[in-house]
Amino acid sequence: MKILTVDEIREVLPSLDLMPAIEEGFRAYSEGRAVIPPVGELLLDKGEVHLKYGFIRGEEFYVIKIASGFYGNPALGLPSGNGCLLLFKQETGEAAAILLDEGLLTNVRTAVAGAVAAKYCAPKDVQRIGIVGAGTQARLQLEWLAKAMVTPCRDVLVWGLNAEEVERYRRDMEPLGFTVKTTLDASDVLEACNLVVTATPSHTPLLRAEDLRPGTHITAVGSDTPDKQELDSAILAKAGLVVADSIPQCRLRGEIHKALESGHIEESRCIELGAIIAGKAKGRTSESQITVVDLTGVAVQDLAIASAVFRKLRDRSTIS
Amino acid sequence: MKILTVDEIREVLPSLDLMPAIEEGFRAYSEGRAVIPPVGELLLDKGEVHLKYGFIRGEEFYVIKIASGFYGNPALGLPSGNGCLLLFKQETGEAAAILLDEGLLTNVRTAVAGAVAAKYCAPKDVQRIGIVGAGTQARLQLEWLAKAMVTPCRDVLVWGLNAEEVERYRRDMEPLGFTVKTTLDASDVLEACNLVVTATPSHTPLLRAEDLRPGTHITAVGSDTPDKQELDSAILAKAGLVVADSIPQCRLRGEIHKALESGHIEESRCIELGAIIAGKAKGRTSESQITVVDLTGVAVQDLAIASAVFRKLRDRSTIS
Repeated sequence: MKILTVDEIREVLPSLDLMPAIEEGFRAYSEGRAVIPPVGELLLDKGEVHLKYGFIRGEEFYVIKIASGFYGNPALGLPSGNGCLLLFKQETGEAAAILLDEGLLTNVRTAVAGAVAAKYCAPKDVQRIGIVGAGTQARLQLEWLAKAMVTPCRDVLVWGLNAEEVERYRRDMEPLGFTVKTTLDASDVLEACNLVVTATPSHTPLLRAEDLRPGTHITAVGSDTPDKQELDSAILAKAGLVVADSIPQCRLRGEIHKALESGHIEESRCIELGAIIAGKAKGRTSESQITVVDLTGVAVQDLAIASAVFRKLRDRSTIS
Repeated sequence: MKILTVDEIREVLPSLDLMPAIEEGFRAYSEGRAVIPPVGELLLDKGEVHLKYGFIRGEEFYVIKIASGFYGNPALGLPSGNGCLLLFKQETGEAAAILLDEGLLTNVRTAVAGAVAAKYCAPKDVQRIGIVGAGTQARLQLEWLAKAMVTPCRDVLVWGLNAEEVERYRRDMEPLGFTVKTTLDASDVLEACNLVVTATPSHTPLLRAEDLRPGTHITAVGSDTPDKQELDSAILAKAGLVVADSIPQCRLRGEIHKALESGHIEESRCIELGAIIAGKAKGRTSESQITVVDLTGVAVQDLAIASAVFRKLRDRSTIS
């Protein structure tokens, strides 16, 4: 088994073409070529652990991803996120590699998925990008919207819990070519922005349906459990297009789960991102349509990014 | 994260006191101190993968174990079993160690569990030990019955699929102090032996209820999926004591699952091994009682053995 450190992984990442890799993962999933069991979960006193695993039939590897969130860690000087990915050969079960990514690959594949969601569902004319949350994922989502050339817009409004947090976000992101305004009132985001990404671990809705304007696209990234929620479920009811990364998974987790549970939408209204990518379903159909994409994080993304990292390092012969 | 190789693990194993470690694992489980989600499963074209994971509240680690069986591997010159165990800290989610055990720890913890089962449920006067199967686990089960001093009996009858296999078993086990007879007719085993261990991947019953004699104890080790079965379910119906390593798990897998499904027993008749260890339920109550213990393999065993290995190596300061 090859052991890949976070430094090796970080070094190889910029050379990978991740948008097509993640798109192909979603597509394979929605076309029924992937086997992805329900997410495994361990709930401990101080944190939670998710196990995401699966494979695409006929590919080289299966993946098992372990990702944890221990939200008291920062007070101990430790990152809250942790984990690793393991790749095994589909032919023999032999371990190919353990990627000691410390959560980096989960962060990146989630940001890439956000860019994919916006590519297919955001309006063409983005007035301003709204980012709800000011942490690591909130940074990566914005970076990837630009990197994947989803929109030429570089005007941003960021919401966070306090002035220090959003100011830090502004200072970090402006050197990357964005013009960042800040707010502590989340309703400002839906008023000023028509491409919105939510990336918080909130358990109560941050965005309200009454602030929603026609033509807005929202990618909801933060909620990946049955309890977390960033969007008022009435937002999904108002949307003309509700997209899941995985319908079976969104039945149990995330914004769609909440909206189904409260009766705001019916499952038959949801389509999968992979179906849009494959051209079997339509993404945005008009500039005035309201669109919501709910990303709970699917193991095909982990498989795609881990396989891409491993293959690149193998091709370079730094590993065999 | 410390990376422990199979050589390091093999070297440290003999210095560990595994019987009390595994007993305490079962006890914690049956006393409700453990959190063990259902087994995760990946079914591939050429093999199957099981994910077993969980923790005991208040302990240092949680465990995630990945174990695979690819039954065409031997034809490729590869072992059929594969996998690894990972230990993480309950306080922070930090990875403590990955144990690249290549299935060794699963094999050993399963054999130790067999010895625990016999310790509490086998008759005092063992006339002959019957081993059904002649592979790795069939060897380890016999070794551990002796190592754990469950019985002074060293007379063995082994059943296998062919003469070469059982002859190899005899040649391997006699130097360890056993007198081994061989048979290719499984019904001989229940006729000659009153402490029987089944350790095959069979999908059809190998032992028949009509051959069962009063006083016999059977530990069924081989079936750990919904489909595998080594015992005619009527054997469980005839037994005065039916023991599960985990009732929730045996509801879905193993001999008890099969017997419940076919209506041969009711779940209320089953008790847990940990309850017997804790003194909250009775093991064998008479020499004439028929007893069956169904071992499907519980993550507390993986946690116990992985923690014991890691702590020993840490105490020796070969790792920090």
